[in-house]
Amino acid sequence: MMEIVLMDNLWVIIGTFLVLLMLGGFILLEAGSTRMKNAGHIAGKTIFTAGIGSLVFWAVGYGFIYGGEGNWFIGLSNFFYGDTSFSGDGLSPAVDFMFQMMFALVALTIAFGGFAERAKLSAYVIFAVLFSALVYPVVHIGSGGGGWLADHGKQDFAGSTVVHLTGAMAALAATIILKPRIGKYNKDGSSNELAGHNQVYTALAVLLLWVGWFGFNGASTFGVSDAFFGYVILNTQLAAAAGAVAALFVAWSLTGKADVPTMLNGALAGLVAITASCGFVEPWAAVLIGGNWWHHCSWQHEIL
Amino acid sequence: MMEIVLMDNLWVIIGTFLVLLMLGGFILLEAGSTRMKNAGHIAGKTIFTAGIGSLVFWAVGYGFIYGGEGNWFIGLSNFFYGDTSFSGDGLSPAVDFMFQMMFALVALTIAFGGFAERAKLSAYVIFAVLFSALVYPVVHIGSGGGGWLADHGKQDFAGSTVVHLTGAMAALAATIILKPRIGKYNKDGSSNELAGHNQVYTALAVLLLWVGWFGFNGASTFGVSDAFFGYVILNTQLAAAAGAVAALFVAWSLTGKADVPTMLNGALAGLVAITASCGFVEPWAAVLIGGNWWHHCSWQHEIL
Amino acid sequence: MMEIVLMDNLWVIIGTFLVLLMLGGFILLEAGSTRMKNAGHIAGKTIFTAGIGSLVFWAVGYGFIYGGEGNWFIGLSNFFYGDTSFSGDGLSPAVDFMFQMMFALVALTIAFGGFAERAKLSAYVIFAVLFSALVYPVVHIGSGGGGWLADHGKQDFAGSTVVHLTGAMAALAATIILKPRIGKYNKDGSSNELAGHNQVYTALAVLLLWVGWFGFNGASTFGVSDAFFGYVILNTQLAAAAGAVAALFVAWSLTGKADVPTMLNGALAGLVAITASCGFVEPWAAVLIGGNWWHHCSWQHEIL
Repeated sequence: MMEIVLMDNLWVIIGTFLVLLMLGGFILLEAGSTRMKNAGHIAGKTIFTAGIGSLVFWAVGYGFIYGGEGNWFIGLSNFFYGDTSFSGDGLSPAVDFMFQMMFALVALTIAFGGFAERAKLSAYVIFAVLFSALVYPVVHIGSGGGGWLADHGKQDFAGSTVVHLTGAMAALAATIILKPRIGKYNKDGSSNELAGHNQVYTALAVLLLWVGWFGFNGASTFGVSDAFFGYVILNTQLAAAAGAVAALFVAWSLTGKADVPTMLNGALAGLVAITASCGFVEPWAAVLIGGNWWHHCSWQHEIL
Repeated sequence: MMEIVLMDNLWVIIGTFLVLLMLGGFILLEAGSTRMKNAGHIAGKTIFTAGIGSLVFWAVGYGFIYGGEGNWFIGLSNFFYGDTSFSGDGLSPAVDFMFQMMFALVALTIAFGGFAERAKLSAYVIFAVLFSALVYPVVHIGSGGGGWLADHGKQDFAGSTVVHLTGAMAALAATIILKPRIGKYNKDGSSNELAGHNQVYTALAVLLLWVGWFGFNGASTFGVSDAFFGYVILNTQLAAAAGAVAALFVAWSLTGKADVPTMLNGALAGLVAITASCGFVEPWAAVLIGGNWWHHCSWQHEIL
Repeated sequence: MMEIVLMDNLWVIIGTFLVLLMLGGFILLEAGSTRMKNAGHIAGKTIFTAGIGSLVFWAVGYGFIYGGEGNWFIGLSNFFYGDTSFSGDGLSPAVDFMFQMMFALVALTIAFGGFAERAKLSAYVIFAVLFSALVYPVVHIGSGGGGWLADHGKQDFAGSTVVHLTGAMAALAATIILKPRIGKYNKDGSSNELAGHNQVYTALAVLLLWVGWFGFNGASTFGVSDAFFGYVILNTQLAAAAGAVAALFVAWSLTGKADVPTMLNGALAGLVAITASCGFVEPWAAVLIGGNWWHHCSWQHEIL
């Protein structure tokens, strides 16, 4: 059994690498849809986000979510996390911690995307601390009902976490999709293209997020049993593909033009849409979920 | 034995990640060698390629190649692929499907590279459908003789597929090398540099393709037995290195200048050259194959 | 036991992929901090570095370090490396060779960073040959005392190598940090920003190096036993985070401005600082090491 346990750890640390790579996608996504003069600043801030988010989540955030010795609502141990033990059963504490921290960093990066180009450093730092220490942990706990995550390590995560944690993620992630389009109309007054828009960055961003999402969804199985990760990744792939294709065809039918930025958003929308259900649906359903979500966005877009 | 089987699946899904990452390399490769005003459009189209290629290959392409219930030439089942079973022996159907699909996407991306900056969306969509549904599957089947791939899952792929499938890939991949140089002379009339050429993109593209090729070749072992992937990857590395160095030295001896774009093409040529034989030759032969291929290109270049 | 051995090989080859990905980080790091007109040239040279470094290390460098049949100081076999055997115990020779070669390539890339924009091709080639054939191997051997690495394969690397090899790396890597700042003052005369500076490249560079460093440090365990890689990676993450945050706060307190380039350098400084000790310290110590190193740099910076 030790072999399987080590393989589970290997798989989750690979997922950790891929989710960290998603931050590269966010760097390019934000830089690609920001005015030239701000792109470098925005890009750099994502690294700072990774820095401060890691420290705060390490110092207190993780303890609030997973620590014991608390009450029904919140954990009160494992602050300044340093559990070096490995029982030989389940995930090593450090591997598990790393994967959880990556999710917190992605959530923080997405949340920060919303106030790019606007915040002062002090506001930024305060928000990062509050989010990593309180908001994210509370959402995390709350998404599964009060405190039931506290006796972490003794239950099967490959299921509940996929749904509830990443369901919360999906809601946050939706802001990725909405943000660029808002900026398209409000800031510059131009309706077709943002100044300084670099679509090479955006396309590479989508690709990096696509690859990274394989880790995000795939390693949420928390192990290799039955090679189930393959199925999760297949659904992820089909939803992203359907999102891109549906977005382009809808835009084409409405405007007669091949709207590449909309298509790129469609791929991300497909990834967001499938996240909550990637382990539970048939591939054909993944295609519909990935494609339909975009239709929904499209309708919203038309209405607004 | 279950441990080894799961490890095989793990290895092939890692290869899948790396081959998808190659699309990032193609995004940058095409964007780096296209005029500035088209770079973003071209970059975005690669994501659309991934989208439509995935859907068509999923809907019909895979069924044509691997489906049963057909005749000696073509399979007629497994359309709208959704095999969720995992027998515990060999690759999980979903993992195998994902890896095969990535090869189809790379082939389609390369094929599309040839008519960048020229096609209308409708032509593009029709080509993508025909290629993913018919051309690629037929090449795939034909490369190994009629229909013998039909009883897929019951034979050892680590050998035949490496040669025949990737041999076909190599032929296609050669267009990567030829394309930029053609454009260099025909489109702009300038003989030294394309307008809007961004060599940072091109260099990063080569690096991403280099890393991705480790998955392309390495995971074509379809498993971890004897850690043979290490040998395949060593040959891949040496051929790419020899391609880059040989290209620079030949260009240097001919023109007296350090021609960086030629060197970058040389690295890719080395990768293409070694693909078909990476599992069968000694490392010194990989160096010669990686380097000599480029000489060949160089001669062609001189003649043309 | 074969399962564990294969998993060790799998882990080290994954580390190889990640360390190669670091070269992508160096491409962007150098391109991002170079004047626009040179960025493409510099970027391309990193691919050439990978090419010539691979060939020379393969031809002679590896033999000098690990070959037998030599004296107490230097090995004299295994030139033109082509060991295809795999005993089923420990790392496959090819996997081990690839991982070692990646370290040599990173060292060469860092060393070359120091004379970017200055060298002629001939000087560049001579340096690459000397470095890969002699300097790097001698440092490698010397770092652990004369010749004790010769009977390679029969000792536990997960410890000594991490300290001594990567200790040498850290010293070299420090030049990454120092270089941009020197250029900031000497070349252009401007004290705030380099012409052609592209901070999107730099931010993505830091992210790629960050991910790649997980392989650099993590796979220096040379295996998966006790899932110890998770602990190493946790320390790496915290040090990078602390480096970024400390750098920004120190710069903020000194200048009142959120100095993003300094923060990005801080993240790299944190990664460099933790490399030698990532397997031996507690997480809280990793935070101090990652953060304090930067303070040190900051003081130097103030003094100079």
